[in-house]
Amino acid sequence: MFYHDDKLQYPVEVEEPDPAFAKMLQEAIGGVEGEMRVCLQYMFQAFGVPDEHAEYRKLLMETAVEEIGHIEMLATAVAKNLEGAPTELREEMSSDGAVNAAMSGMLPRQYLSAGMNAMPIDANGNPFDASYVVASGNLAADMYANVMAESTGRLLAARLWEMTDDPGMKDMLSYLVARDAMHQNQWLKALHTLGDPEDPFDHLPIPNTFPEEEMPDEFDYSFMSTTRDGEEYEAPWTQGPSVDGTEDFSFVWEGDMEGAMRDISAADPDTHNEVASDDD
Amino acid sequence: MFYHDDKLQYPVEVEEPDPAFAKMLQEAIGGVEGEMRVCLQYMFQAFGVPDEHAEYRKLLMETAVEEIGHIEMLATAVAKNLEGAPTELREEMSSDGAVNAAMSGMLPRQYLSAGMNAMPIDANGNPFDASYVVASGNLAADMYANVMAESTGRLLAARLWEMTDDPGMKDMLSYLVARDAMHQNQWLKALHTLGDPEDPFDHLPIPNTFPEEEMPDEFDYSFMSTTRDGEEYEAPWTQGPSVDGTEDFSFVWEGDMEGAMRDISAADPDTHNEVASDDD
Amino acid sequence: MFYHDDKLQYPVEVEEPDPAFAKMLQEAIGGVEGEMRVCLQYMFQAFGVPDEHAEYRKLLMETAVEEIGHIEMLATAVAKNLEGAPTELREEMSSDGAVNAAMSGMLPRQYLSAGMNAMPIDANGNPFDASYVVASGNLAADMYANVMAESTGRLLAARLWEMTDDPGMKDMLSYLVARDAMHQNQWLKALHTLGDPEDPFDHLPIPNTFPEEEMPDEFDYSFMSTTRDGEEYEAPWTQGPSVDGTEDFSFVWEGDMEGAMRDISAADPDTHNEVASDDD
Amino acid sequence: MFYHDDKLQYPVEVEEPDPAFAKMLQEAIGGVEGEMRVCLQYMFQAFGVPDEHAEYRKLLMETAVEEIGHIEMLATAVAKNLEGAPTELREEMSSDGAVNAAMSGMLPRQYLSAGMNAMPIDANGNPFDASYVVASGNLAADMYANVMAESTGRLLAARLWEMTDDPGMKDMLSYLVARDAMHQNQWLKALHTLGDPEDPFDHLPIPNTFPEEEMPDEFDYSFMSTTRDGEEYEAPWTQGPSVDGTEDFSFVWEGDMEGAMRDISAADPDTHNEVASDDD
Amino acid sequence: MFYHDDKLQYPVEVEEPDPAFAKMLQEAIGGVEGEMRVCLQYMFQAFGVPDEHAEYRKLLMETAVEEIGHIEMLATAVAKNLEGAPTELREEMSSDGAVNAAMSGMLPRQYLSAGMNAMPIDANGNPFDASYVVASGNLAADMYANVMAESTGRLLAARLWEMTDDPGMKDMLSYLVARDAMHQNQWLKALHTLGDPEDPFDHLPIPNTFPEEEMPDEFDYSFMSTTRDGEEYEAPWTQGPSVDGTEDFSFVWEGDMEGAMRDISAADPDTHNEVASDDD
Amino acid sequence: MFYHDDKLQYPVEVEEPDPAFAKMLQEAIGGVEGEMRVCLQYMFQAFGVPDEHAEYRKLLMETAVEEIGHIEMLATAVAKNLEGAPTELREEMSSDGAVNAAMSGMLPRQYLSAGMNAMPIDANGNPFDASYVVASGNLAADMYANVMAESTGRLLAARLWEMTDDPGMKDMLSYLVARDAMHQNQWLKALHTLGDPEDPFDHLPIPNTFPEEEMPDEFDYSFMSTTRDGEEYEAPWTQGPSVDGTEDFSFVWEGDMEGAMRDISAADPDTHNEVASDDD
Repeated sequence: MFYHDDKLQYPVEVEEPDPAFAKMLQEAIGGVEGEMRVCLQYMFQAFGVPDEHAEYRKLLMETAVEEIGHIEMLATAVAKNLEGAPTELREEMSSDGAVNAAMSGMLPRQYLSAGMNAMPIDANGNPFDASYVVASGNLAADMYANVMAESTGRLLAARLWEMTDDPGMKDMLSYLVARDAMHQNQWLKALHTLGDPEDPFDHLPIPNTFPEEEMPDEFDYSFMSTTRDGEEYEAPWTQGPSVDGTEDFSFVWEGDMEGAMRDISAADPDTHNEVASDDD
Repeated sequence: MFYHDDKLQYPVEVEEPDPAFAKMLQEAIGGVEGEMRVCLQYMFQAFGVPDEHAEYRKLLMETAVEEIGHIEMLATAVAKNLEGAPTELREEMSSDGAVNAAMSGMLPRQYLSAGMNAMPIDANGNPFDASYVVASGNLAADMYANVMAESTGRLLAARLWEMTDDPGMKDMLSYLVARDAMHQNQWLKALHTLGDPEDPFDHLPIPNTFPEEEMPDEFDYSFMSTTRDGEEYEAPWTQGPSVDGTEDFSFVWEGDMEGAMRDISAADPDTHNEVASDDD
Repeated sequence: MFYHDDKLQYPVEVEEPDPAFAKMLQEAIGGVEGEMRVCLQYMFQAFGVPDEHAEYRKLLMETAVEEIGHIEMLATAVAKNLEGAPTELREEMSSDGAVNAAMSGMLPRQYLSAGMNAMPIDANGNPFDASYVVASGNLAADMYANVMAESTGRLLAARLWEMTDDPGMKDMLSYLVARDAMHQNQWLKALHTLGDPEDPFDHLPIPNTFPEEEMPDEFDYSFMSTTRDGEEYEAPWTQGPSVDGTEDFSFVWEGDMEGAMRDISAADPDTHNEVASDDD
Repeated sequence: MFYHDDKLQYPVEVEEPDPAFAKMLQEAIGGVEGEMRVCLQYMFQAFGVPDEHAEYRKLLMETAVEEIGHIEMLATAVAKNLEGAPTELREEMSSDGAVNAAMSGMLPRQYLSAGMNAMPIDANGNPFDASYVVASGNLAADMYANVMAESTGRLLAARLWEMTDDPGMKDMLSYLVARDAMHQNQWLKALHTLGDPEDPFDHLPIPNTFPEEEMPDEFDYSFMSTTRDGEEYEAPWTQGPSVDGTEDFSFVWEGDMEGAMRDISAADPDTHNEVASDDD
Repeated sequence: MFYHDDKLQYPVEVEEPDPAFAKMLQEAIGGVEGEMRVCLQYMFQAFGVPDEHAEYRKLLMETAVEEIGHIEMLATAVAKNLEGAPTELREEMSSDGAVNAAMSGMLPRQYLSAGMNAMPIDANGNPFDASYVVASGNLAADMYANVMAESTGRLLAARLWEMTDDPGMKDMLSYLVARDAMHQNQWLKALHTLGDPEDPFDHLPIPNTFPEEEMPDEFDYSFMSTTRDGEEYEAPWTQGPSVDGTEDFSFVWEGDMEGAMRDISAADPDTHNEVASDDD
Repeated sequence: MFYHDDKLQYPVEVEEPDPAFAKMLQEAIGGVEGEMRVCLQYMFQAFGVPDEHAEYRKLLMETAVEEIGHIEMLATAVAKNLEGAPTELREEMSSDGAVNAAMSGMLPRQYLSAGMNAMPIDANGNPFDASYVVASGNLAADMYANVMAESTGRLLAARLWEMTDDPGMKDMLSYLVARDAMHQNQWLKALHTLGDPEDPFDHLPIPNTFPEEEMPDEFDYSFMSTTRDGEEYEAPWTQGPSVDGTEDFSFVWEGDMEGAMRDISAADPDTHNEVASDDD
């Protein structure tokens, strides 16, 4: 069950409202790098963790709930940046650069659909779409999904921080930047506790329960080059030790592979796939 | 520029066509864990790599092009599994369990829209949607996105492998399982070469170019607990060393944080947000 | 069957074309508050009404068909606002505020994809998506969906009316504002005729055919508070008569509820959900 | 800020797991009638309520938080219904009706993407999409959106209740049916407190701040008939008092309206809209 | 403006309701090949036709309006096929193949969301999405879009016709098959009247207003081969006359083209694209 | 299998970067008229062509692979147009028209999500969606889909060409304009080789394998007029020879058709569609 109180986790102040920045902040709410995604991702991951891994379920739910509070902060920031935003496409507009910039840079639906408020959409105006929410059932895969989400999330927060000069907004964003640093660290730590705790990469390759003998042996440590000319070259991923420590990398050129021919039969006539040469 | 020849990377044989499995295979083509996603993801990442990191651009493009070949293999597998699939909802259906299962388990549009062929959709029937394609411009973030994509991709291939008894399909899937193992290894290796090559986690936290002094100090290594009762507990992420090695983790309960009050002003009357108490 | 003639329901004049307003008008065509939604919503509702409720089927179809005419008017308004819109990102642009505003404020695809015409998209540029079309089969639920659609629709028309100074556009929008007022009234009237005509709320709770004795008694008139501290308070929805007139409201704090523990078993090994601690 | 504890609001028991029902339950999680929609809808509405209406903000947030708990319950129900679900399309399948039904009736991605867990999708397999989330900034419009959401939500819960014989599932669903009844009542009560508390319909027409004199007078209480033959008829919405009590309804046939002609100019040649009759 | 009467264009009878066929019919309503697409496509094309081409505007609107009637017929067909469909996942199910097939083959939301009615979705369950609606502003491009839409539409109707044995459904579908044949013919006829009426292909290449001298000469009639080995071959599109009659086709191998090197600069540091090697 | 080399098909130079044009170019990458669509469309069509039509499979795959190179060129063009684009919403902005225009005209996610790079989205910011990819299994239908795709694609390229004054961009676009002209010609040529090679329209009506005697005779060559008044008129599609040459066109007014009445029964009570007049 869930509860709430009236406070924000961290102050959200806007010295000078900026409707264009209100648009940009939407990416941090409803974008693929945003808080709705991580909130739902950690929550659905938590829902699926069985009882014997309760410590990971708790970890995931703790952070999912923290993220709801980030959505709340960002929605507040959007509303404050829209205070006093223009609602008229005036004739004078063409001669007033500032109003121009404000109107052209606004996201129309923040006014038209939400009355100058935040929406569950991204900065390009696309509605949040739960297809980005990853909860695979496998904790190792999920932890990488979480590190990735916090990496692109922190990158976004850093870019937003660069974009504004408003001290309140810079402060709020630096808080989110800090939280996303922590979250990267915590998900990686959790990842490293999976499998043998002495071996941080024991979870590899994910899923590490697939019977190794079932994989065709020549393909699981060979880098496949797909250049037209097939020239071999050296790189950390074409030779030397792999990260999971089991075998060394090798190099193979696709053009040297045996491959196989395609053979596709014609479909059933009921598909009407065929074009007859005489149809009467 | 790109080129092709007539061969498949690996044999695609189907001993006994199974239209229900043709549906399941769609997830590996157009699903969020599928080959269209990784192919486009590596390609768009490659497009954005500047010349001074040409070795990573090459790495990304090599594998992007390999993945097109996986789409080709899977599309062939779908077509072969649909050979002889029923096209009629017959009256006899109710008494013939096998036809029943085939018809009910099929994805309607493989017949209706594609004439018994593969489509760029997932196993639930949703069209592929490029919003899952992650290419952030930051190589470290992208590498985690790639490890994550290959982790869920290999998990999917393993689940499909469990689902079928067809020897041809099991063999083809084991090839994809092997490639996804290699890809996890190669992306992690590339990740570890970023930053100081002696320190595999030097890239943390992503982006590692954000000025550290700008982050509010108390929030970047503290685990934030959000339970109602606030009871403190020990876990690898509430104490002890963090993965990036800079500071130790600590524990904070959200209820103990100072927080801040929300204050939201009424919007401009032009929004018509208000409900008047007397409108005539 | 359907028919048409050449006229618009109401004049659509544009004194001074404004490409930014052409963008805003798209919300009224393809937005969630727009005419495509209501048109299709009333039509699909009408399709499902059984013969014994033919008067409601007729009501719904009459208005669905009126709404097609609104799409026609709005598409005309978009085309007229795009007359003379710039098609070049000129070098001079930077020094000419008016052209700047026009180009930056335009919706790119109105030119690129439609040759300066209306599209079935919203003002943020998202394609119309029939998932907003509600036709539940239950007339009471549908009537609330319709009142809601006309409420947000009229709110949108009023906001668009505020946004423009063009007399032709203001006049056209005031017509739509008037029609949406009528539609709110007519759907509510229809709602009140459902069930006992003497009791406007006899349709509650929707569906009113669910056997009341099957509902756990303590939960259907109690307001559930979810604050962390659980402090009780008085409001029109925590005490006093409910709208359906059956029972009085009461107050319950979530933290005082008995609740239940979750217990989730580990999934089948075929899911490969587990991370093994030793994979060779 | 938000908090959680370990309990479910109400017991979630499944006597006999049913993977087909696990599919159906998805509609109540990620469907347009589901809990993710109402949760986010109430939360985004709350985010936008200004301080002077704090009692409505609290009302909205209280219920938003309750709804997160419903998602948690339903996700638990999905996982329990998937316990022991088949993961193989066996050869024997055709002769075993029960396995057939289970496999054909399952939602593929619950296994393939989630390892036998709930996902943020609907029963047809579509990902949750925040375009259904309505938060208009106008409390009256929002309250109708909420009544509508709870009406279709309760209708869905009732249909799911009819669909299952499992006592645990029937019990859980009856709880949700009860809560949705309460929510219909509470939103309507809140609606009736807007504007003049003595007049439950004083909020009409929404928004009730649009200047009435600006509406073309003949259109705001007239029912517009769109039949081809234009025959007049009597119905509660073509005559008699309207719900907002201001004027009586009247009847108008579209074919009798003055209307207006369309006049659309040719677009700029840069659009390349024209087809030339001689292109060299 | 638009009008309606009570009749269907053509009889819609169902002898034996079949809920699985109700699912399949959805493709003809809300699918990319379906009637909603063509209806909206012709209507939006008509909206954009300028006055001097009024005969094409009329042509487009006439058929758009015919297509609304097809949606009406198909929605009726869906409802009739759902009559008596099961609403319970019974325990007996496993032993009754017919009920099994019905339940497993149904589209869940036709019951759950629509109370056994048609929805604006396709046969895979995806909501109709107006991104398939093509109205480019250029009549020649639009006519090809229309021929294509009627081609895939008629193909779909033919496949549905194969799928059913119900005489009423076969009859209704044969009507749609006939109309789609007419529509292919009418759009092609209209296409051939564009440009010089003596030359059916005078409209090529579309748009035929692009200044020919601006195209790099060696690329507009040469077939570009992309095989790895570059072997030349003869085909009707590598030599001989082209359809627009201006030049003969020729053959070029991509590997022989001059091409150009990519050169991508590093992005601004504010993007945080770089990974630093030492971040403190 | 697929291969690549390092070159672009054609030079991509940008003299003066223009972030607004970087937005517009996205339509040519991820838009419905763009290169991702045609690339995937030809590839999926190729995947489904049976062995006996190998020459068409080859034709389709050759061009699919060419199109990947177009995506590569356009992504390069986007990155070059974003060089030096502003990343700050500065206070000075209001007084500097050029920076204003740049910031307001940019697509936010090119910076926020991609670090100043191309994305798989369109110019309105919508992610590419594979629902536009048409691969029907019937070569004639597919060829029309391809002509249509190249027609709207070339129209788009021409419009982009009009939009820019940059010589490098004009040159690159003229190359794409030339290729799209070739592709229109090649697909039409392929279409005309289907069926009897002497009769370019022998493929009509598509699919031409539907038994002609099954179509109700009066509907397959009659133009259906849907005007309210039913006045007959002459046009090339209401009389005279049809394109497939079989019969002449005729004229029918919808209002004169026999039609049929709808009759829809009430649904099963389990749907809870009914509103009871007394619910206790």
